[in-house]
Amino acid sequence: MKGYAIVGQRMPRTDSVAKVTGVAKYTADISLPGMLYGKILRSPYAHARIVSIDTARAERLPGVRAVVTGRDIAPVKFGVFKKTRDQYLLAIDRVRYMGEEVAGVAAIDEDIAEEALSLIKVEYEELPIVLDPLAAMEDGAPQLHAHVEHNIGAQGVINFGDVDEAFRQSNRIYEDRFVTSKMNHAQMEPYAALAAYDSSGKLDIWVPNQSPFTRRKGLSNALKMPLNRIRVHHVHIGGAFGGRSDALPAEFIAALLSIKTSRPVRIVYSREEDMIATRHKHAAIVELKMGVKLDGTIMGKDIRVILDGGAYMSSGLIATFDLSTKAEAVYRVPNIRYEGSRIYTNKTPCSMQRIHGNQLVLAEEMTLDRIAEELGLDPVEMRLRHACQAGDVLPSGSKITSFALSETIDKAVAASEWRRKKGKLPSGRGIGLACCTGFAGFNMGFRLNSAALVKFNEDGSCTLFTGNVDNGQGNESMLVQIASEAMGIPVKDIALVCADSELTPQDPGNYPMLAAFCSGNAVRLAGLDAKEQIVKIAAETMGVSASELEVKDSRVFVKRETQKAMRVADIVKLAFQSGNTILGRGAYTPKAQSEYGWADWSSGRVQGQQGATYTAGTTVAEVEVDRETGVVKVLNVTQAYDCGYALNPMAVEGQYEGVAVQMMGETLYEKLNWDDKDGRLTTDSFLDYRIPTCLDIPKIRPIIVESIDPDGPFGAKEAGLTGGGGVEAAIVNAIYDAVGVRIKDMPVTPEKILVALDEKER
Amino acid sequence: MKGYAIVGQRMPRTDSVAKVTGVAKYTADISLPGMLYGKILRSPYAHARIVSIDTARAERLPGVRAVVTGRDIAPVKFGVFKKTRDQYLLAIDRVRYMGEEVAGVAAIDEDIAEEALSLIKVEYEELPIVLDPLAAMEDGAPQLHAHVEHNIGAQGVINFGDVDEAFRQSNRIYEDRFVTSKMNHAQMEPYAALAAYDSSGKLDIWVPNQSPFTRRKGLSNALKMPLNRIRVHHVHIGGAFGGRSDALPAEFIAALLSIKTSRPVRIVYSREEDMIATRHKHAAIVELKMGVKLDGTIMGKDIRVILDGGAYMSSGLIATFDLSTKAEAVYRVPNIRYEGSRIYTNKTPCSMQRIHGNQLVLAEEMTLDRIAEELGLDPVEMRLRHACQAGDVLPSGSKITSFALSETIDKAVAASEWRRKKGKLPSGRGIGLACCTGFAGFNMGFRLNSAALVKFNEDGSCTLFTGNVDNGQGNESMLVQIASEAMGIPVKDIALVCADSELTPQDPGNYPMLAAFCSGNAVRLAGLDAKEQIVKIAAETMGVSASELEVKDSRVFVKRETQKAMRVADIVKLAFQSGNTILGRGAYTPKAQSEYGWADWSSGRVQGQQGATYTAGTTVAEVEVDRETGVVKVLNVTQAYDCGYALNPMAVEGQYEGVAVQMMGETLYEKLNWDDKDGRLTTDSFLDYRIPTCLDIPKIRPIIVESIDPDGPFGAKEAGLTGGGGVEAAIVNAIYDAVGVRIKDMPVTPEKILVALDEKER
Repeated sequence: MKGYAIVGQRMPRTDSVAKVTGVAKYTADISLPGMLYGKILRSPYAHARIVSIDTARAERLPGVRAVVTGRDIAPVKFGVFKKTRDQYLLAIDRVRYMGEEVAGVAAIDEDIAEEALSLIKVEYEELPIVLDPLAAMEDGAPQLHAHVEHNIGAQGVINFGDVDEAFRQSNRIYEDRFVTSKMNHAQMEPYAALAAYDSSGKLDIWVPNQSPFTRRKGLSNALKMPLNRIRVHHVHIGGAFGGRSDALPAEFIAALLSIKTSRPVRIVYSREEDMIATRHKHAAIVELKMGVKLDGTIMGKDIRVILDGGAYMSSGLIATFDLSTKAEAVYRVPNIRYEGSRIYTNKTPCSMQRIHGNQLVLAEEMTLDRIAEELGLDPVEMRLRHACQAGDVLPSGSKITSFALSETIDKAVAASEWRRKKGKLPSGRGIGLACCTGFAGFNMGFRLNSAALVKFNEDGSCTLFTGNVDNGQGNESMLVQIASEAMGIPVKDIALVCADSELTPQDPGNYPMLAAFCSGNAVRLAGLDAKEQIVKIAAETMGVSASELEVKDSRVFVKRETQKAMRVADIVKLAFQSGNTILGRGAYTPKAQSEYGWADWSSGRVQGQQGATYTAGTTVAEVEVDRETGVVKVLNVTQAYDCGYALNPMAVEGQYEGVAVQMMGETLYEKLNWDDKDGRLTTDSFLDYRIPTCLDIPKIRPIIVESIDPDGPFGAKEAGLTGGGGVEAAIVNAIYDAVGVRIKDMPVTPEKILVALDEKER
Repeated sequence: MKGYAIVGQRMPRTDSVAKVTGVAKYTADISLPGMLYGKILRSPYAHARIVSIDTARAERLPGVRAVVTGRDIAPVKFGVFKKTRDQYLLAIDRVRYMGEEVAGVAAIDEDIAEEALSLIKVEYEELPIVLDPLAAMEDGAPQLHAHVEHNIGAQGVINFGDVDEAFRQSNRIYEDRFVTSKMNHAQMEPYAALAAYDSSGKLDIWVPNQSPFTRRKGLSNALKMPLNRIRVHHVHIGGAFGGRSDALPAEFIAALLSIKTSRPVRIVYSREEDMIATRHKHAAIVELKMGVKLDGTIMGKDIRVILDGGAYMSSGLIATFDLSTKAEAVYRVPNIRYEGSRIYTNKTPCSMQRIHGNQLVLAEEMTLDRIAEELGLDPVEMRLRHACQAGDVLPSGSKITSFALSETIDKAVAASEWRRKKGKLPSGRGIGLACCTGFAGFNMGFRLNSAALVKFNEDGSCTLFTGNVDNGQGNESMLVQIASEAMGIPVKDIALVCADSELTPQDPGNYPMLAAFCSGNAVRLAGLDAKEQIVKIAAETMGVSASELEVKDSRVFVKRETQKAMRVADIVKLAFQSGNTILGRGAYTPKAQSEYGWADWSSGRVQGQQGATYTAGTTVAEVEVDRETGVVKVLNVTQAYDCGYALNPMAVEGQYEGVAVQMMGETLYEKLNWDDKDGRLTTDSFLDYRIPTCLDIPKIRPIIVESIDPDGPFGAKEAGLTGGGGVEAAIVNAIYDAVGVRIKDMPVTPEKILVALDEKER
């Protein structure tokens, strides 16, 4: 994009020095005077009734300052939505997964706290467990929650067009079943929470999070405190990936212990706790039925998704619905039936994980490849023919404002030399392609839009205030860069205060794809507001009209006579002297319906703008499969993703690369396993739960495709989420190209390859 | 004042629980991880050349992390004004008072730091000293600074009218000389500074201060850092009284040590250090000549003030000028000549102390009493006849917008039963009266006005951001109360973020009488701005015009139909949903000329509005003097002071009481003494430097007089400063009434009484 001085530039991150030098403090690094150490007693059973809890011996242990159980506190449930609150802050009479929080202890050191846990006597009465979501839906299965039947926590059907008629008009019907795994977010920073309540009635909390404001709301609801007496502090965060979007009991427990003791209480999870007691990614069973004409025209699709949700709802309602938005927005398919169900099982509760929805992408993109092959069509052409375009109105009524799916296909195909390679690589090597979509500018319905503020100092430097949070992806830098462009003030002159619920204007945080699109817009508007105030004073002082002026490098100048100029610093001084101030305000709410539109989608109809803008991407992966060992090696990944506008190409590419690695882990390695007998998580360490290491990372070729969204800040939408949804399908399609087997059960372990090759032989 | 719901109410302070429970953290309470302990090596000579400094041994001491001297750093001078910067951050080649900072050490504990000081070898070459300001002005006196002659750091003459002609027209000329002492501010919290510089280039600092923004500016100037990379944090402050208005070398030293080590460094003063190395109050010699007609009409006055400034300028320029404003604003006297000089001496530098200017008040009010007595006039009538009135234009051109001096005289006289008691009390008992004035809304010329911000949350609660600071007088509560009244939101629903240079809009802080008048106005305007935003949305939603609506108790209602209402919380949610936010902005600059008007007053003419508004007060004191011991006991003090409007009568009365006690200390007890031979401060502890204790406190009768200033927030001006300037003169006048001696040399020790009684006898 021409005409921008700051955005569009490759810029090192503003927090890089702090992170490299160790100055950046993560929650576990923070110590407060008089701080106590908190530990949590967890259920040893996957399903049980709590008969009694006796904390007397623990409380008597010298050094123990407080013990808290579900029976000591108000029976408050928390959850992402008011109507999905199903989890007590601490278990009261029942535990539903092994590892559930039963009691919290605060002591003067960690060893004493640990010992105190062993002194708490809990009498349990074991209950039958159910781990498999299909089994959980059957009659007679153990029921986890009284308020739902058949353990179906959320369920809904959406009908666009007439899928039955579409199937009647189809020449062929393709039907398949795909399975993905329950996964851990595996952030490098284990979860931690530090709470400090003081007797003036103020609660300060530090916790790795994706949204200080929704975290604050959760604490406010649970603890019955006004929002302005709770401060969720800025902390550096070692990864989120969706797993730090909703509250965990541990932060309530830290707060309750701090309230009880009037001392700060810090809880730091071990890796094992982090594996078992933070949110997981939903495992999914996707049944996809697709009807096509012989020329490849897709007439309709019928999607049935069953999500394994674990013991509590968390963000399961969003997770169940979200796949439907992917169903309608990649290809022009007028007739769609989508049924989503989220099932309670006696496992760790699930929330969103980057990239939720890839479960459906896997099914669709594998099926498209199969159709193309069986009908003798070009899989690229078939995708291009159906690809949604800017200006389309989707079946839900959502309008697509900008969309470069076709261009991403073209560019990924060209850069990967797809046409030269597809079907023509040496034996054991293959190439696969897949597309994905999603949206930015989701209206989470938390009644939280993005607002931002810029405050100027008399030396012309300023501070930007935004509630958005940086989980490691570079949002802090991005927002500074946007402010810089909007104001004409160099990046170095902009300090940042962010991700603090007390100090910054409200912001929904890093919920789906909001940082660039929503927070970015708010920051841009705040910057423009400040600039307008500056220009107004300059115009009055210089005796010209505001429209004749421009600001660049902290200098306001007459556009046609650039040497006629004033320093921003001098303008700020003038403002102060004349009873004014330079404080820029901005606020932005995406043009999409709020939760109230879609949260009732169980009615069968979804109408209205689902996301404010849609993005898309195409991945091409090349693999080598060892037929002897079944080991898959990803040789390279080409990613052409539409980010709207690359505010910082370096950061955008970093996001593209990150998602390739993360999705490769999901495709080839990652799976949480449970002991069927007792519901124990058997993969509770990085020894057992394997994530990609630097040795596994293939050559990655990120290609930035810009569609310049009319509503995005400088045209930007999001980077590193939506597009990456196709990495998994691309790898699996490449495996088929390499050795001719379609693995539909993730992850693609060597064993599965060998079994499939064996079956194919026979 | 009628019609206000919140202001005007007696309200306990919002910070009272935190202070009572010990939650409130003062600078010395704050520990940061990895923090080092800083200590300062001080000059053992009152005047010397530094020949050499050898820090090698200190640096080698295990546990020492850094040593810094003036020779290691850029030769930067600091000071309150650019043109008065005369003090190096650390002495380089010369020390000018005993206790001056020569080196700083940071070590892992205090003992090691202390030991390291003893290992620093400094070679000094002693220079002759001068302690007396009159001696310092003489030819041949030791010269402290090369840039001034006769040690006259600041000097200026103001001529209003023609004082010589006035004296010619007078029947009598009264001339006298009055002396006040150098004093310590004696804050209960000793000075401390904590600096934390990190490698990202950010400096965080905690220091008891009266103005985070001017402190930040000082650090920015000295360390050559942009304003937005320095954060002066909010801390609780154990008293200021003017002594924490300008920077001290210790905070620069803490910052330099932190920069050198990249670790936090905390310096905490001992009481002895606090006595010798924080700013002192100027001692003054006031020569007053007053010409009157036989009927008591004051024709003119000639004032010559010599201030003992100590070794450096600090806020001496303001101190020198400030007395002139008191000279013109109490009584209508058209012909005034004022000459002020501030003299460098080899003593601790002096700054402002509550109540600077009382030195002149003492002279004038004692002289008035003498005139009245000698001409047989009623001292009350004489004052009433000359009292300035609202609407007056002073000789400087300053307009008085509101002024209740006459009313304070009437009320103080009535409440104290002056007429019944004056001259009629039993032997040894006496009653005295004095008036004082001053202004609020001084434009400090730091290019800093007051701005404020209010941020609303979706539950209707909000947070007020103000840069003003609470030094113990209750400013935090006052500003919340103002915001509450302006918005119609209860005090309990308003949280406060204040006195933090990074987080809040700019504010000049607690410089002369700015908290209520300037910050209060900014807060009021921010509140009104937020209310306007709220009302606008309510009007649109309810289909009425904004003018029909009012806000009270977080409810917006139709004035004529009060049950037709919306909750503020719901309006905030509507705002968020519609891409808006409720962020109220306010800014205020007092209508007074800035430093640039008066800083050049040495020209002899001062023209323009000196303070935005003027306040006044009358004190009546009753004393008992023991003729045998000379001990003076203050029996009671009646204070009728004009505060404009009492925003919180409880806090206003607290201020009146506080100033009575502080001024009583100045009148009867407090004086810093120096050893003439070597320039050593001999009164460096509370054993030697006596301040009033609770046993000394008389019965105090505070009387609030309200003049409702047109520009003050709800009519408020200031409380506890201006009015109290007469306490000293009232006590001294009462002593004369009691035993017939006029003591003109403060403090009035028993020895002086006895000597005077003895002289009178003879």
